[in-house]
Amino acid sequence: MTVDARHAILFEPVAIGPRTLPNRFYQVPHASGFGSVRPRTQAAFRAIKAEGGWGGVCVEYAPIAADTDDTPAVAADIWDEADARALGLAAEAIHAHGSLAGLELYHGGATAPNGASRFVRMAPSQVTSDRLWGGLAKEMTAGDIARLQRDWVRAARHAADVGFDIVYVYGAHGYLMTQFLSPVMNLRTDGYGGSLANRGRFWLETLEAVRAEIGGECAVATRIALHGDSGVPGAETLPGIEVDDMLKLIGMADHLVDLWDVTVGSWPEDSGTSRYYPEGHQRRWTHRVHEATAKPVVAVGRYTSPDLMAQVIGSGEADLIGSARQAIADPFLPRKIAEGRLDEIRECTGSNICILREETFNHVGCVQNATAGEEFRRGWHPERFTPATGVERPVLIVGAGPAGMECAVVLAKRGFGAVHLVEAEPDIGGRLRWTRRLPTLGDWGRITDWRAVQLARLPGVEVITGRRLGAADVLDYGAELVVIATGSSWRCDGVQPGHPEPMPGAGPALPHVLTPEQVCAGKRPPGPRVVVYDTDGYYVAPGVAELLAADGYQVSLVTTFAVLSPVSDETLEGDMLRAHLHRAGVRVRHATTITEIAPGPAPSPEGDGGPWTVVGHDRYGDPWSAGCDAVVLVTQQASEDALYLELAGDPAALAAAGIGAVHRIGDAVAPRMLSEAIFDGHRLAREIDSPDPATPLPYRRERTELG
Amino acid sequence: MTVDARHAILFEPVAIGPRTLPNRFYQVPHASGFGSVRPRTQAAFRAIKAEGGWGGVCVEYAPIAADTDDTPAVAADIWDEADARALGLAAEAIHAHGSLAGLELYHGGATAPNGASRFVRMAPSQVTSDRLWGGLAKEMTAGDIARLQRDWVRAARHAADVGFDIVYVYGAHGYLMTQFLSPVMNLRTDGYGGSLANRGRFWLETLEAVRAEIGGECAVATRIALHGDSGVPGAETLPGIEVDDMLKLIGMADHLVDLWDVTVGSWPEDSGTSRYYPEGHQRRWTHRVHEATAKPVVAVGRYTSPDLMAQVIGSGEADLIGSARQAIADPFLPRKIAEGRLDEIRECTGSNICILREETFNHVGCVQNATAGEEFRRGWHPERFTPATGVERPVLIVGAGPAGMECAVVLAKRGFGAVHLVEAEPDIGGRLRWTRRLPTLGDWGRITDWRAVQLARLPGVEVITGRRLGAADVLDYGAELVVIATGSSWRCDGVQPGHPEPMPGAGPALPHVLTPEQVCAGKRPPGPRVVVYDTDGYYVAPGVAELLAADGYQVSLVTTFAVLSPVSDETLEGDMLRAHLHRAGVRVRHATTITEIAPGPAPSPEGDGGPWTVVGHDRYGDPWSAGCDAVVLVTQQASEDALYLELAGDPAALAAAGIGAVHRIGDAVAPRMLSEAIFDGHRLAREIDSPDPATPLPYRRERTELG
Repeated sequence: MTVDARHAILFEPVAIGPRTLPNRFYQVPHASGFGSVRPRTQAAFRAIKAEGGWGGVCVEYAPIAADTDDTPAVAADIWDEADARALGLAAEAIHAHGSLAGLELYHGGATAPNGASRFVRMAPSQVTSDRLWGGLAKEMTAGDIARLQRDWVRAARHAADVGFDIVYVYGAHGYLMTQFLSPVMNLRTDGYGGSLANRGRFWLETLEAVRAEIGGECAVATRIALHGDSGVPGAETLPGIEVDDMLKLIGMADHLVDLWDVTVGSWPEDSGTSRYYPEGHQRRWTHRVHEATAKPVVAVGRYTSPDLMAQVIGSGEADLIGSARQAIADPFLPRKIAEGRLDEIRECTGSNICILREETFNHVGCVQNATAGEEFRRGWHPERFTPATGVERPVLIVGAGPAGMECAVVLAKRGFGAVHLVEAEPDIGGRLRWTRRLPTLGDWGRITDWRAVQLARLPGVEVITGRRLGAADVLDYGAELVVIATGSSWRCDGVQPGHPEPMPGAGPALPHVLTPEQVCAGKRPPGPRVVVYDTDGYYVAPGVAELLAADGYQVSLVTTFAVLSPVSDETLEGDMLRAHLHRAGVRVRHATTITEIAPGPAPSPEGDGGPWTVVGHDRYGDPWSAGCDAVVLVTQQASEDALYLELAGDPAALAAAGIGAVHRIGDAVAPRMLSEAIFDGHRLAREIDSPDPATPLPYRRERTELG
Repeated sequence: MTVDARHAILFEPVAIGPRTLPNRFYQVPHASGFGSVRPRTQAAFRAIKAEGGWGGVCVEYAPIAADTDDTPAVAADIWDEADARALGLAAEAIHAHGSLAGLELYHGGATAPNGASRFVRMAPSQVTSDRLWGGLAKEMTAGDIARLQRDWVRAARHAADVGFDIVYVYGAHGYLMTQFLSPVMNLRTDGYGGSLANRGRFWLETLEAVRAEIGGECAVATRIALHGDSGVPGAETLPGIEVDDMLKLIGMADHLVDLWDVTVGSWPEDSGTSRYYPEGHQRRWTHRVHEATAKPVVAVGRYTSPDLMAQVIGSGEADLIGSARQAIADPFLPRKIAEGRLDEIRECTGSNICILREETFNHVGCVQNATAGEEFRRGWHPERFTPATGVERPVLIVGAGPAGMECAVVLAKRGFGAVHLVEAEPDIGGRLRWTRRLPTLGDWGRITDWRAVQLARLPGVEVITGRRLGAADVLDYGAELVVIATGSSWRCDGVQPGHPEPMPGAGPALPHVLTPEQVCAGKRPPGPRVVVYDTDGYYVAPGVAELLAADGYQVSLVTTFAVLSPVSDETLEGDMLRAHLHRAGVRVRHATTITEIAPGPAPSPEGDGGPWTVVGHDRYGDPWSAGCDAVVLVTQQASEDALYLELAGDPAALAAAGIGAVHRIGDAVAPRMLSEAIFDGHRLAREIDSPDPATPLPYRRERTELG
């Protein structure tokens, strides 16, 4: 393959200690939810990245012993030899594609939940984690320190024995090494606390011991955190370790390290979403690491642009392009760059659905790449598609939203030669048409953009916009296979979780009652005082509130949740989102339910006035109300399923029209997250030739030995 | 064995369809966290209950198909034959003790997270669960209904084939069957919605199909919910199904059912804690079931008293005593009743630590019974103890709190002949001495009470109270083995999570700054306006607030959490606790951090006045303050570890004194939950003769087949 000269630098090999990476693409350690208990699923997930051209591929964090048990999360435990054998499947699978395999040996210290082991937490001092309730940590004794370092060496030995090329001493993201480095978390008065050198001692000793054990065979990597933007909520997870101190520590440890893996700030900053951080946002910190080392440095920053990647390497800021999220969204990014297929790169949206799945203790998933995590489970490959049977059937897909677009792309890739994707609106994208226009959500449009390129390029697909099809139109269309992907819409009747009856005073076509779609389409409240009512808990209500506040409205956001937008906490955006809205002047009222929109000014002590009153109750059931000029209801969605039900309800008409099957996908089945709607469209297309395509096929699960 | 006549009724056999239970003790289905992926752990956990005399022993809820995948919780999935084979180990283990084995076939409907399967949720109507965000359910089609009933029958067939005697159609706790029954969740207009008969159709058809498949071999059980106290928060999980309607449904289904398993109300009521529900609180509802059926009825109610159990059976209210929590706390309750060892029964405290562990996606655990869940993992038996080596060594345990009491009991049962348990205070119990005196927390005292009986009975133990030992006393004591269990205390310096430095204005011996222990010991604020500051999140701050409110103080509870006492949500107490405090007049301020106690009246808009001002910030970091007369700091605990550190730091003195080892346990290592402190004391005693008793031995984990 001939690489474009401006990207050639990305394909240079890089020596790290006794090993050599074949290129500069490096998948940094990140969670998958497969750990060492789903070893074949893990191996298949990582192998795809090696196949796609990532020269270094790491497994996730690997707890070294039972006192850093991360249960209920699933981690790559390497407590003993049997664990190591299971993880070795991943190393083997990565090697099969010529890449190096890394394992991130880890100890969580005061943050280890120890849910399965029930061992006491370990930490430099008896401090509590702000991430956990239920117990403080044990202040480690000298004996604990020595034992834990032996555990680290033992785990490193096991990792080397099963084939890992790169072995980490993990020191970032607020875990044990960071706890020792921190003058706030480490209050020790012995040789492991106090001065910077003392606080660094545990880390340096561990590096030294690990290097002594496996340094001749493996590259020794360490992952460290630079203090980032101290204004970021959550920055206290790097308490008190300033950049200059970290550079000094890097200098002290440099002779023990073959690869520096650099993160920035607390996790919400390090894995910053596209809503609040631009691509490459970490450069202003990471460029300084080479002040302290000449060893190779891997830097992350949600890089999706090959040109920027080449610039980062070319400028000497870093030696390797690190990636977690982009490598999930497109495992084949390196190959696509090498082959010049830049517009085929499935760019990470930076929406952190992968992290939401991790935070909710599920396996990895991705809004852009429905195959992520399904390599072993369902046998899905992100770039290869089994030819389908019956591809001669003309296909009609009604609705070019996320599910419909995805289904069309996959059907075409499976060999269907006539897939018509018909959309009622003037543009494809479905709900993304308006979502991407909400403040800060522009990069979510990449979901549409990548599919638009695919749809235009695939010869089997025709996209037709601005055409609304009724049942008769579908029957007359000439398709033999019909997929309904008509999506969902926000209800204007005030139906909400726990209250399936309409809300008195809500309804369609009222000037003072709005839905999010209406606001995004330009409908505006008839007066300045607006209540945005949220029972959804994610991005829509805050987005609409911010939009209206920017337009000059006085916005009160009333939510049933005790925390505004709790789902955003799972994507690491919550604190920033809330600070953002607060700065925008949006008032928030928590834990409050609205049950009626009544006429007349409110008798509320809040005294907002206005021709309408929202009436409801607070967290204790006590009455609450407030006056306003208008209400935006972000309460519940409803499937647009009338077309499907009409068609499916008339088998005779379908038979007469020569339509063999009608399916539905995405929100037309049930409103849900974008990632799940896309997954649904993908799945149907992958299984369209199964005996019962509407019912997902069983997937492969790894089984427990029955002994 | 000769059973006391007044309890003999409990030991009568009971026919249920084609099977016969050997007695009336019935362990109802409840979660263990072992599911079908840890089959040997599951089998050992259930077998102990059969061994202890429970005539019927059920495994937990068993999802019948991938569209009711409960990931991230671990359930007894029975999706296919391989799952069934794994679960069959439990049936076999239960049979080995002569008991019947039950499996609760389950579908969660709109509440199924489907985290691993990523299938769409199924429900009678497109409603959302108030337990989940991220998606509504699919309104089931006629095809879905038929398929799901086939899945139920297939799962029943598998259950019968691997040996289960009792097979459930699970219809309680808000899951799919209940969703169909509910006029609020079921908005269908076909034959499965509308009238009561229509809403009951799905349940009855499923019962009929299951009975047709396995009725000749197995007892068909169903679990149903009676509407309980409608004033209970969370009652909406039984929306709109009144008791009389449920009795009608029971009548309609009675010919299809061999055993009625009755629950009451929503989960927080059904598994009501001792704080808010007395033993037998469900009787006022469950006694009505026999109005509609003559089939056997199993009723629960956190029964711990044999006399009350006999009364419930004798009066005809129920035929079987159902138990989940008491069977965890004491698997040997039936045998102990049979043998007249009533004061040896380890009574459930009703604190719902078992449920807290389930809610946080961990395996089962119990504050009273440290061996719960450890039968396979660590080989622990609740009633049998491996004789230890070195039992001739005299043992000194310093501190008779939860960890120290537990350690003394287990050491004595392992054969140590001279265990001295020495306590500085006039009574044993440690923190339970004051905890059990907080409002509503009396039953937690059962932790002390059971151990007090054991300690008095075990010949090897001597309990000495009112004697505070210093290091010199310990050295002089004549012990060869010393265990320090000196516990922890609440800090009065205002150190709190994220703020390891003392809080300005806090400190010891100030009349206006109090700790929880001081309040419980009788110290009272110097004026009426009290701020209770909570960064702990569990029962202590609400308990102290309620105590002071009852004494006439004006109490403001300021908490860093967005929800008061979030830990209580995991024990199902949160809503009740908050309503309780609200009724008691305690004002709550959420998401607020206090950083200083300053002199002078507050410039606060809250205008509380008072000689002291608490100064801090709200959730956005904006300044906040309030005036008060006193502050109770429920911020952080500190280990009382001085004695341990002094002893452990002088090996020469220990050697000279003939002391071979000094260990520490419980909060003296690290402050933590009661259940974990007791577990720690138990573990040390079980492993006291291991090579390194301070470090827990590895436990058995079940492994994944490497294929």
